[in-house]
This record gives sequence, structure tokens and C-alpha cells, in this order.
Amino acid sequence: MLKLCVIVLAAGEGKRMKSATPKVLHEVAWRPMLSFVMDAAVSMKPRKTVVVLSPKRPEVRGVLEKSVAVAFQKSPLGTADAVAAAVKEIPKDSGDVMVLYGDTPLIRPQTVRRLYEAHVASSASCTVLTTFLNDPRGYGRVLRNDAGRFLAIVEERDATVSQKAVREINTGLYCFKKDDLLEGLKHIRPDNRSGEYYLTDVLGWLFGSNKKVETVLAEDPQEVLGVNSRRDLREASEVLRMRILESFEERGVVIEDPKSTFIDPAAMIGSGSRVRPFTYIEKDVVIGRDCSIGPFCHLRPGVVLGDRAAVGNFAEVKNSTLGEESVMHHVGYLGDTEVGRRVNIGAGTVVANFDGQKKSKTIIKDQAFIGSDAVLIAPVVIGKKAVVGAGSVVTRRHDVPDRAVVAGVPARALKPKRK
Amino acid sequence: MLKLCVIVLAAGEGKRMKSATPKVLHEVAWRPMLSFVMDAAVSMKPRKTVVVLSPKRPEVRGVLEKSVAVAFQKSPLGTADAVAAAVKEIPKDSGDVMVLYGDTPLIRPQTVRRLYEAHVASSASCTVLTTFLNDPRGYGRVLRNDAGRFLAIVEERDATVSQKAVREINTGLYCFKKDDLLEGLKHIRPDNRSGEYYLTDVLGWLFGSNKKVETVLAEDPQEVLGVNSRRDLREASEVLRMRILESFEERGVVIEDPKSTFIDPAAMIGSGSRVRPFTYIEKDVVIGRDCSIGPFCHLRPGVVLGDRAAVGNFAEVKNSTLGEESVMHHVGYLGDTEVGRRVNIGAGTVVANFDGQKKSKTIIKDQAFIGSDAVLIAPVVIGKKAVVGAGSVVTRRHDVPDRAVVAGVPARALKPKRK
Amino acid sequence: MLKLCVIVLAAGEGKRMKSATPKVLHEVAWRPMLSFVMDAAVSMKPRKTVVVLSPKRPEVRGVLEKSVAVAFQKSPLGTADAVAAAVKEIPKDSGDVMVLYGDTPLIRPQTVRRLYEAHVASSASCTVLTTFLNDPRGYGRVLRNDAGRFLAIVEERDATVSQKAVREINTGLYCFKKDDLLEGLKHIRPDNRSGEYYLTDVLGWLFGSNKKVETVLAEDPQEVLGVNSRRDLREASEVLRMRILESFEERGVVIEDPKSTFIDPAAMIGSGSRVRPFTYIEKDVVIGRDCSIGPFCHLRPGVVLGDRAAVGNFAEVKNSTLGEESVMHHVGYLGDTEVGRRVNIGAGTVVANFDGQKKSKTIIKDQAFIGSDAVLIAPVVIGKKAVVGAGSVVTRRHDVPDRAVVAGVPARALKPKRK
Repeated sequence: MLKLCVIVLAAGEGKRMKSATPKVLHEVAWRPMLSFVMDAAVSMKPRKTVVVLSPKRPEVRGVLEKSVAVAFQKSPLGTADAVAAAVKEIPKDSGDVMVLYGDTPLIRPQTVRRLYEAHVASSASCTVLTTFLNDPRGYGRVLRNDAGRFLAIVEERDATVSQKAVREINTGLYCFKKDDLLEGLKHIRPDNRSGEYYLTDVLGWLFGSNKKVETVLAEDPQEVLGVNSRRDLREASEVLRMRILESFEERGVVIEDPKSTFIDPAAMIGSGSRVRPFTYIEKDVVIGRDCSIGPFCHLRPGVVLGDRAAVGNFAEVKNSTLGEESVMHHVGYLGDTEVGRRVNIGAGTVVANFDGQKKSKTIIKDQAFIGSDAVLIAPVVIGKKAVVGAGSVVTRRHDVPDRAVVAGVPARALKPKRK
Repeated sequence: MLKLCVIVLAAGEGKRMKSATPKVLHEVAWRPMLSFVMDAAVSMKPRKTVVVLSPKRPEVRGVLEKSVAVAFQKSPLGTADAVAAAVKEIPKDSGDVMVLYGDTPLIRPQTVRRLYEAHVASSASCTVLTTFLNDPRGYGRVLRNDAGRFLAIVEERDATVSQKAVREINTGLYCFKKDDLLEGLKHIRPDNRSGEYYLTDVLGWLFGSNKKVETVLAEDPQEVLGVNSRRDLREASEVLRMRILESFEERGVVIEDPKSTFIDPAAMIGSGSRVRPFTYIEKDVVIGRDCSIGPFCHLRPGVVLGDRAAVGNFAEVKNSTLGEESVMHHVGYLGDTEVGRRVNIGAGTVVANFDGQKKSKTIIKDQAFIGSDAVLIAPVVIGKKAVVGAGSVVTRRHDVPDRAVVAGVPARALKPKRK
Repeated sequence: MLKLCVIVLAAGEGKRMKSATPKVLHEVAWRPMLSFVMDAAVSMKPRKTVVVLSPKRPEVRGVLEKSVAVAFQKSPLGTADAVAAAVKEIPKDSGDVMVLYGDTPLIRPQTVRRLYEAHVASSASCTVLTTFLNDPRGYGRVLRNDAGRFLAIVEERDATVSQKAVREINTGLYCFKKDDLLEGLKHIRPDNRSGEYYLTDVLGWLFGSNKKVETVLAEDPQEVLGVNSRRDLREASEVLRMRILESFEERGVVIEDPKSTFIDPAAMIGSGSRVRPFTYIEKDVVIGRDCSIGPFCHLRPGVVLGDRAAVGNFAEVKNSTLGEESVMHHVGYLGDTEVGRRVNIGAGTVVANFDGQKKSKTIIKDQAFIGSDAVLIAPVVIGKKAVVGAGSVVTRRHDVPDRAVVAGVPARALKPKRK
């Protein structure tokens, strides 16, 4: 465990979200945005992680692991005030303190690690995470000499015209030597228009005290931008969704159009499987190798597809298994159904798994053929190599024997299948 | 009513659109782009609004309110020539004239208001709306002194290398003192390569005459960028669609993926309702509170959903009502149907509302249960707490009594429902 | 045929793609990215096109036309080394050599042509394609005097702070006089950190030898950016998809939401047709004029729609024809079916074209009416003006005569249709 304490500032009101939900609980990619920051914090295995909350928003605590400490910032008096609220929680034996923000869900664990490792390697009093922005207005600018050596941070309000043209900015994420942070916090004053205590002023004090301040560059500015509006929320959600899809792609899944593809990070998909556009795959779905899914497909929780199985357009499957090479190419609904291998399910076929009171199970054995627009009323079993005629209704508990051919409403046996 | 006249320039040919449709009539978010500019103009409640059209495109008039005046620019001789064409329509008692553009559908009423209010407050001869662009090439640059005080506009062709690096630009939207505008129009000459009369040259004349010119900043450059190509059209449409969705979100609707969600601005949705991806909600749809819609759902005009109702995947509903807590979770079609409360409609169920000649109505009463893949042939009534078996076909005028259980093709009564 | 040889560099490993597929074979808009570059190369009708491949990736050859020559770069020793590997393939009578890249699928033929034509017109030793980037870091910058006259390219490593602020960059696409290229290749050395031979160093040698070097600007930077990651791949795919859709729009097709519309470039669609959101149209689909398609519609290969036909939501059609004014407005499946004119196909209707062994054909004649949720079991013929009742199952080979009315499971004749 590192001699590190991570402080996550999460007390912001988020008024620009125009919502009763606390800002850091707004969801991106199906999870509260704070969770992603906590993942990055926890990935460091710090001695302690402290989250600073607003006393008006105690419900934020609900999404935190029990191992995480919480501090409350009484009034919204600025970032340095928020850090000060956490000081009493910093373990005495911490050597360094990192400051992260609950509203930057795109921060990657490896970026946090790079910040920490560079900080430790350089023995700086403070290491600042910087990035390049196309539009740096409003941010503190990073000043360097011609050799690229870091000189100082200059705030927007104090910057000259040529300094304002600098596009490298202070992200506000820092790693401090604990003692220097604590000392610095004592020296700052709210002598600015908003009357707040700014953490960047600690940096100013460190410079003034000739302490060593270093920088680390975050190549991707998206990682460190705060989510402050619904537009930001949408963009962050899209970025995270794409990261999830990329991780599937890296494991050999072909995703034809990531923008119209939703896959819960808790789903599993085998390599060689192809996901076509307009597909929604929920959690607890397990898909084998070389399967084909979509377009226009909805796999709900509890679906398992064997290798080379295919589920096609306008098909909904819920809490069901399809064995190897079984196909449901067209519109239809399958719920609470166990399908064997090499089964063909025709267009329009529906399993009636709910009778208005309870849900029941359907079993379709290997190599059965379910004709188009058939209805299977659960509970029912369709035997191996059995054939259910198109438009048939197989009624509850009228199981179809192996190799039988049934048709009609209700379905009745016709004759043994020829082969 | 303000002593203001608004001139909207809408005579552009829009050749880059490669279409027979006049540029300003191309649709963004289901409406001609000019409509959005007119909304912004009308929101000012000006004494008069004058739209300048091309005589080759008189059909543009068709989308304008009757209260709006129209002027025709005989030949495309530039922006100042277009304004000059509208001069005779400016009411004599107007103090100020604002110039807007028919191809900037993203302009917000509040931005137009800020421009006007700043103009009146400063008593300038002209107030220029400016913005910051990442790529300012082609635009007039805004020159300021080190204190940020506005000095002048310099056109691209006259700019030095360092002036070209300036990213604050003249958007071309202005508010003029009427008399200064009229005087300025007299002094400009088409002495440029294209032989056109440019409205920016009026600015040049104002500067030369030591008139006061001020600026107002549009924070969001999207608002003032003209739509000149199909790519611009797509981007504007996307922005407007997102604004519409944000307004639903602000009223408490949860929209999981705005990018794959289409909601007509004339639809109504109660707070707490959740809209899942791939959903298309048309106009005249009214959705209650805490409903669930989608994914893959199409609600066509005339749909009304009671509180806590749910419509799920691959479901199409048209001109129908679903009462409180009624659900249609799966694939199916409902048209011209009145569904009571707590009704369950199974997967694959279809209402046959059209017999090839006319459409008829279906009524499904409270707590009825419609089994999977049932067909209800309109006109027909399904009684309270009645049950229609899976795969049944309920034929025309064979109404199902309250609490009856029917099944088969055609559906016949089985026995009274047990409870 | 021009006295031109085009060299396409396609030997890159593409490690950042994290995939076993060679980088240039990754698909964008349904085709390997290299194909789009080859289209641009071939559009020039050069004397010869040479593609430089890695000997580790010989499978790339499989996507090339036979007329294209291939050279292998033994080791990845830089761009100049790759060009050197192609030298022996350059025809002796070539006057000029153009260098393109297999990983820039967005390059347009017209841009390549402009580069060549400017090169020939200026008689330069080398003409460099340049572009403007918001973030020029890592690229060689284009230096110009105050009059805009090209002076030199300066590499990032050698650039001063003010040179680094220049946003016009060297894209790496060149047209060389053949003899100057060959001479230049002899003079460069791998004296850089990576020990590679850089083609930009040939430029340096040309400058040093007082050869004439000119530039041509690519207005759209997207065209010349290499695809190096999955994110780039997604973005390139989106851009190409939009170009395809724009070409349909230019021919009068209305596409409501291009972002959720997939149309294979090999499909044909008549003017006045409207494609609504969430639509997927595959190759070998031919759609007439004034048709309506979607939303949520999947047209698979072999579909032909007559003028004014309509296919609506949750409908899948495969290898089928719908005659003029025929409609399938709702959910359903049509496969291997020939539908006449003015036919109405009801919601939920399915053609059972596959019996588990083979596929058979269905014919539905003019003005037939297929009721909701009907099943037609192929092979079968539905006569002219015939009516199939809602919920009916028309069985195999039980053809329905002209004007007959059938209903039930199996469907039986009711009575002659009244009119």
C-alpha cells in the first residue's frame, strides 16, 4: 500500500445540470459518474481515500464503498476549503496527497498512476497534471522556457495577451507532499471576487516559497475535463461507452457501428463474434465465439449464446440459452427458454412464458425446427429433431416428442418426421 | 413593443446544398431552418420583422407568419444590398435595426436579446455580435487593446499575420441605430473582387466617421454559424434535437441515450419517465409520469400513456390510449385502440384495425390479459379482467365479456376465469 | 495515361489497432480502408500503381486489383525506406512519382488530382500537400513569408516556439519529379532517435539543393489524417458513411437522420424517396421513386421496391419485390416473395419461406389484402384482389384464387369478395 492519501472533491452543487440529482450521481454509461473516479482512486491502492461531500447531499455516500472515508464541506467556499475539510482524515503516515474530482469520470487509472509516479520520482512539493486545450480560456496557463522547462502557472486574470495564447493548462489535479499541502493551506486567503479559497493559490504559495513544482502531461484532454452540463454528460457517456466497446474489440469482437451499439460492461462476448448496428446487450449476457447478433437486436439479462449461434433483427431474448449453431434470425420473443444445439426458430415465433400470474420455462431440444409465427405456451418441451409447423400454437404441457411433427391451433401430431 | 425593426436575410441561393429546395427551407429537427430564426426574431416583439427573399424563391414566403413583411432582393449583390432592399419596409418610428440571417437556425432568443439590450444600454451606433472560433479563417477579426477594449474589425484580406491569429470574429449579426445604418448604406461601394455590397463595409464607414461601435460576445459559436452544406445541416439538426431533449430532461424525463432518441417537440412526457435508446416519439403523444418506453419503440401520433405504463421493444402504437400501469413489453402493433388500466399485452400481439376499406376501433378494458401473439380484429371489445389465450384470433364484433376466458382460432369461450 | 507512378505505402504494422488484422485491411464503411486509397490512386489513371507491403502481411495483396504492382519492405525502416523498396517498380518513362498512404481512407480523388495538376503546372521538384490542423503538434510546420509565399518545412524537433504555433502542416503526401526523388533517396541518413529513413528528409535535401518545392492546400484536414487507432477507424467510417449518404441526398433522396441510417453504396434509391431513422439497407437493393422506408427497417440484399411503395417499422424484407404502391407498414418478415401492385400487407405478417431444408417462393398478386398476423407458407400463390383474413395460416401449395377470401388455420375459402 502506497504512502498516499487520495482526496476526491465531490461537494459541487452542479446547478447547471438543472436536476434534483446530485451532480456526481448523474449517470454516464449506466453508472454514477463518481464511480469512475473512485475506480481510478482505488486502483492506486492508497492508504486512504477521502471523498468530500456537501452536507446537503448525504445520499452521495450511498454509492461509495465502505472502505472510503467521507468528509463534509460545510459551505461551498472553494476547492482549498474542500481539501481543508478532508485534512483531519489524512492518515498521519501519508507522505503524499493526491487531489481528484468527482465530476471527471473520464480520468483513467493509468493517468493517475503516471501523475503519482512522476511526483515521487522528482521529489517535487507538488506535481501538476496539465493538458493542451484548443480553447484554454478560463484556465490557468502553463508557462515554460524555450527549452520546454516548466516555469510557473499563471491564472487567466493575471495573464498577458501572449500568455493567454498558451494552450497548455493546469487541470487542477495535483499530487502534493502532504506537509507542503498542509502548510500551503494555511497561507491562502479568499481575496478574490467570489470570496473563495482556491487550491491553485496553494501552488502560488509554493512558488513563492521556492518549493519545487513539476508537471505531468495528460495527452488526452477529455480525461480531465469536468462534467458541468447535460451536454458534457452526454459526451462523457459516449466516450465511456466507446471505451467499453473498444475493450470488446481488443478481445476480437467485431462491432460494425459502435455508435448504435450498447453493451453492458458486465456482458461477455467471445472472439470472432460480430455485432451489427442497433444492438442492445444488457448485463449478465454471455455470448460464445463466432456468433452473429443484430441488427436491431435486444439481449436482456440472463442470455447465453453458444458458439456460432445467431440472433437477428427485431429479436428479443431474455433469460434464455441458445445452444451452438442455433439461430433465431428474425422477429420474435424468447423468454425463460432453454434451446439446444442447431435449432432453427422461424420468423415471428413467440414463447408465451407468462400466464398473467407466473413465468414458466420452455425447453427446445437439439435440432428442433420451430416454424414461422409459432407460439409455444410455457411450460412445454419440444423434442429433439421435432418440427413445429408455421402458425401453430403448442399449448401448455402438451409436450412434443422427439422427431414428432405437429401443426395447427392447438398443435397436433401429423406424422413422424421422415428422417 | 420595442422601437426595433428586425431584418432577416434569407435570399441566399444555397448552391452548396445541391438541392432544388431553397436553402432556408431545408429542415432541421423537423422544421425549415428559417423558422428557428423567425422564432428568435419574433421573441423580441419588434415593431416589424422584414424577411429579405430572392424573387426566384417566392415559396419561402409560405413558411412565414402573416405578420411578417417581405422584401425582395432583385439580384444577389451582397449583404448590404439585401439590407437595402428591406429599407423601405423599416417603420419610420424604429430607433434600431437588427440584422439576422435565415441560415443560422441555432441562434437563441436570449442571445438576440442580449445583443439588443447591450446595444440600447451603450447607445452605440452599431453593436456587433462576436464569437471565438478555433478556425477563424475567412472571418473579420475583432481587434482589442491589452485591456480587452474593442478597437476595430479587420477583414481577413487586410489582416496582418498576428491579426490573423486572433480567434474572436465578427459573426455578421448586428444591431444598428437606424439612422446610422441608412447613412452607412449610402457610402459603401462594391469595389471588391466579387463586386458585391458588403454590410461589414458599413461598419468600416462607422469607424471612419468616429461613430461608437460596441461588441457583445456569443459564448457558443454554434449559434451564429451559417448552414451552408449538408454537413452543416446535419450538425444543426443534431444540436436542435439535443436542445429539445434537454428541455425534456430539465422537466425530469430520463433519456438514456439522446443520440438515438427522437422526440417531437410537440410531445408531452411526465417526470420520472424513462426513455431508452432507439426510440421515436412523434407529435401529439402524451406520456404520463414514471412510464418506461423502449428500447426500439415507435409511438406514432395520438398515443396517450397513463402513469407507470410501459411500452417495450419493437412495439408500435398509433392513435391509442394505454391506461395506468398497462404494459406492452414486447413486439406488437396497437392501432385505434383504447386500453384500460393494468392491462397486460403479450409478445407478438397485433390489433387488426384496418380491413382494407376502413379503420375500426378496439377497446380492451381494465385488467384484461391478452396472451402472446393474439390477433384482435376490430371493431371488438375485450371485457374487464377477460383473458385472451396465446395465439388466439378474436374476430370482428365477437366481443369478449368481462372475466371471460377465450382461446383458439376463432377465439371461443373456455370457462369463467377463476377469480 | 499520365506519365505518373503512384506509390501507396501500406506496410505499417498498426500495433495501436490491437488486432491480428493488418492495419490497412480494417474496414471502414464496409470495405478495407486501403480500397479507398486505391480508388483515389486508380482514379488518376497512372502508368503504374505500386503498393508497398510488409512481407509479414502478404494477405493484404488479396484486396488489390491485379493491375497493381506490389513491392515488399523487408524491415520497417521508415517512409523513405518504404519508397526505396518500390523504386525498382517505377516505370522508366515515368516523369513523376506520387506518394500516398494506405491508412488515409478519406483522401478524395479530386484532392489527389489537384496535387498532381499543381505539381505539373509549377514544374516543381516536389509538391507537398499541406493542411491546417487545430492541434499541429508532432507534424512538420509549413513556413511562409508575410505574403504567404512558401519558404520551408520545419520539423517539430527543430521548430522555435513561434514556428510551433503555425497550424499549417506537411501531410506527408507528395508529388515528386522522379529523378529528384531518386537522387534525394540516396542522400538521406537514419541519423535520428528511431534510426529510420524519413521521406521528409528528402524534402530537406531538395531545399538544400535549391530545388523548387511547392505546396497545395487540402482544405479538409480529415482527408489526410492517418487511421492509427480504433477511434480513428470509427471516425473515418462515419465520415465515409456520411459521404455515401450525401451522394444519395444529392440525387434527391431525403434522409431524415443520416447518423442512424446505413445504406450500402451499391444500393439504388429513386428521388423523392424518404428514409426515416434506424434504417439498414444492404447491397443489391433497388428502391423506386417516392417510396417511404422506416423507421426501424431492414432491407436485405435482393429487395426491389416499386414507385410509391412503403416499408415501415420493424419490417424485414429479403430477396423480394414489392410492386408500385404496395405497403408493408408494420412489423413482419417477407422473404423470397414477389408482391404485385397496390398490395396491403398487415402487421405481424410473416412469409415462411424456409421449411428446414430449402427455401421456396411466394407470389402475392396485385391488390391482394393480407390481413394482420397472417402466415403464408411457401411455395404458395395469393391471387389478384384476394383477401387473407387476419390470423390465417395459408398452407403450402394451397394457392388462393383471384378475388377469393380465405381465413382460419389452415385458411379456407369463405365467399367471393363482394367487389
